[in-house]
Amino acid sequence: MAEHHVVVIGGGFGGLEAVNGLKNANVRITLIDRRNHHLFQPLLYQVAVTTLATSEIAWPIRTLYRDQPHVRTILAEVVGVDPNDKIVRLDNGQTMDYDTLIIATGSTHAYFGKDEWAHVAPGLKTLEDATMIRRRILRAFEAAELEQDTDKRRALLTFAIIGAGPTGVEMAGIIAELAHKTLHGEFRSFDPAEARIILIEGGPRVLSAFTPELSEYTRNSLEKLGVEVRTDSIVSGCSEEGVSIGEEFIAARTIVWAAGVQASPAAKWLGVEADRAGRAIVDENLRPAGLSDVYVIGDTAAVASNGKPVPGIAPAAKQMGAYVARRIRSKLAGTELPGRFNYRHQGNLATIGTRSAVVDFGKIKLRGALAWWLWGIAHIYFLIGTRSRMSVAWSWLWIYLTGQRSARLITQKEAAPPPAPPST
Amino acid sequence: MAEHHVVVIGGGFGGLEAVNGLKNANVRITLIDRRNHHLFQPLLYQVAVTTLATSEIAWPIRTLYRDQPHVRTILAEVVGVDPNDKIVRLDNGQTMDYDTLIIATGSTHAYFGKDEWAHVAPGLKTLEDATMIRRRILRAFEAAELEQDTDKRRALLTFAIIGAGPTGVEMAGIIAELAHKTLHGEFRSFDPAEARIILIEGGPRVLSAFTPELSEYTRNSLEKLGVEVRTDSIVSGCSEEGVSIGEEFIAARTIVWAAGVQASPAAKWLGVEADRAGRAIVDENLRPAGLSDVYVIGDTAAVASNGKPVPGIAPAAKQMGAYVARRIRSKLAGTELPGRFNYRHQGNLATIGTRSAVVDFGKIKLRGALAWWLWGIAHIYFLIGTRSRMSVAWSWLWIYLTGQRSARLITQKEAAPPPAPPST
Repeated sequence: MAEHHVVVIGGGFGGLEAVNGLKNANVRITLIDRRNHHLFQPLLYQVAVTTLATSEIAWPIRTLYRDQPHVRTILAEVVGVDPNDKIVRLDNGQTMDYDTLIIATGSTHAYFGKDEWAHVAPGLKTLEDATMIRRRILRAFEAAELEQDTDKRRALLTFAIIGAGPTGVEMAGIIAELAHKTLHGEFRSFDPAEARIILIEGGPRVLSAFTPELSEYTRNSLEKLGVEVRTDSIVSGCSEEGVSIGEEFIAARTIVWAAGVQASPAAKWLGVEADRAGRAIVDENLRPAGLSDVYVIGDTAAVASNGKPVPGIAPAAKQMGAYVARRIRSKLAGTELPGRFNYRHQGNLATIGTRSAVVDFGKIKLRGALAWWLWGIAHIYFLIGTRSRMSVAWSWLWIYLTGQRSARLITQKEAAPPPAPPST
Repeated sequence: MAEHHVVVIGGGFGGLEAVNGLKNANVRITLIDRRNHHLFQPLLYQVAVTTLATSEIAWPIRTLYRDQPHVRTILAEVVGVDPNDKIVRLDNGQTMDYDTLIIATGSTHAYFGKDEWAHVAPGLKTLEDATMIRRRILRAFEAAELEQDTDKRRALLTFAIIGAGPTGVEMAGIIAELAHKTLHGEFRSFDPAEARIILIEGGPRVLSAFTPELSEYTRNSLEKLGVEVRTDSIVSGCSEEGVSIGEEFIAARTIVWAAGVQASPAAKWLGVEADRAGRAIVDENLRPAGLSDVYVIGDTAAVASNGKPVPGIAPAAKQMGAYVARRIRSKLAGTELPGRFNYRHQGNLATIGTRSAVVDFGKIKLRGALAWWLWGIAHIYFLIGTRSRMSVAWSWLWIYLTGQRSARLITQKEAAPPPAPPST
């Protein structure tokens, strides 16, 4: 058994890429995650809108490394790190020594100090988030079928999505299609096409990471699908009854949060400096100051490359994971260490409903049906394993041909709301 | 709009068959279910053992009737019936008049007075039951990877299934395959083949509804798969620590209940006589005594046919649903009413792992691989819609070819145990 022990916390894109990069290196690896599955987050919104089933975008992590005896997978929650003694603490009381530690624990939703909004405006980070949002969307239509009060029915059929980045745009587009196409003819007391889908963005345009032309195209496409796009609109309140934009109140019983993220507490564990989003500030080699055997990668880390902050997206996490693996290999082999981490931006992609997308590869910019096919092929390519690729391709093909979505299940009961916060 | 209003409570096999049988009859129908989906219960155990995804065996009920405007689907829980005023009461406070009422609300688990076992020995009736059992099975293996105490690990790797009817037999066979084949090579601190699967049956043989020869064959097949079969074994206790058979205690952290069912409270709603399992006693036309406009069908009803009690299985529920629809049509048309309900038993089927099954069609009895193919084809045939048939066929084919199961996800947190019952 190899002597050098690498502990990787987090089985997301960054963590898996680091483990993969250390294949056949002379190390033993322990991969710790609090979930038993790797989740393909870029398609998570499709679970929330009944397009895909949970098992199509999630894979048991330990299956991926079944043939690599040097990798041990642990299902546990990390509660702390002691970088002086080089120890990771688990929630079951056990500890684990490491020689090198890679923290790739991702991020969660941020409500900008309004944590009381979390219960009424869930974000989309886990499979449970997705099935909860799916449940709320479907239940709203079901409740509308029984509602006799016109105003209340209107509120039930109003869906507000806060934040017009790729996730918000994609959610809004598919909810519109769900309401206006998939559910057509299924209700007797109202026409699901009456459903109102509102996409609310604080900034001046949707998809701000894309070019203004693609943003404009996206806005027009969404509006053709029946989405109301509200830019320059700062949300001032969220409740069970609806959402407020400044002084204006919109009655909406379903609210989805796609507006901000907060890094996981890696910086706190390590006692190192963090930026405003809670991301650990790391050097050009992805190490927090003063800790030469710890790397922080993915959207848990704050780092700049070529003078610009590296975005919190899957390709960046994968590049960081691969970089760290290269560094560890070089160090153990005694060869020259790779230089500073350089992020190569490969492009931005987002879909708008079933037959349209926008793609920005820098020099190449595409929109419409061709972009949509490219988006679909790229995402299928990045899924893990033949089984998932065929299954997702088949699910999409079925919806493309029939308009029918198979994962329209209301499961699990809604948890009771949390107790009211103490008044301050 | 038709004048005669038929209310159907329950979108299971019986309820849907009744609605289907009333197509083009001069009635309007309201179908009430507390879930938004019809569930193909015969394959539910395959969700619990990671073979199938939830969406492969469940369909949104309202989609089935999108093209039948005379059918209205309601997602609501029925809390009572007033047969004098011909009213159904819903949980949201609304009421609904009916001209004819069909109750097809199914059954739930029965713990024979030991309701405190329910939390540690869940049964298998809903999608949530299935994902909970799946979570417990997978978590047990995960916890075993971290457990350093040999006895505790042994308890984590012991799975007790109580009740050796078709569900118990099928669960035991597939858990054995999961442990001994699918998980092979994925753990570092133990060999999953060490897992102990115990099938506990109070009666003298497994699959008591089948012939003794097929029972014997099934027992031998299970034992070859590594299942310990304990017949004539009455469970005297269930706890978080394990299961007791008489004086013997078996440490087992995962227990599945497949031993008994209790009818839903239709008899209580109606104020009519019930049998010991809580089923409403109905006449030869499936009506409770004194209520000429109410039918109770499926495993909510206690009725005999040809001198034998009709079993609580899907084909019986479907036959009852079709019979009641025929009766209603005849009554409205003023033609001769069909005679008494006659149950035609079509046979018994059960699988034992992936390549073996037993089939008892009365004169024709099959076992082994041929029976397994027949079982598979029959079940795919009875699924609803091309999409599900192809999806399930594909999932099974993939497992058959690769041994890999795709739905190995631990989702949702375990609910806290219920408060201890008051001491008596």
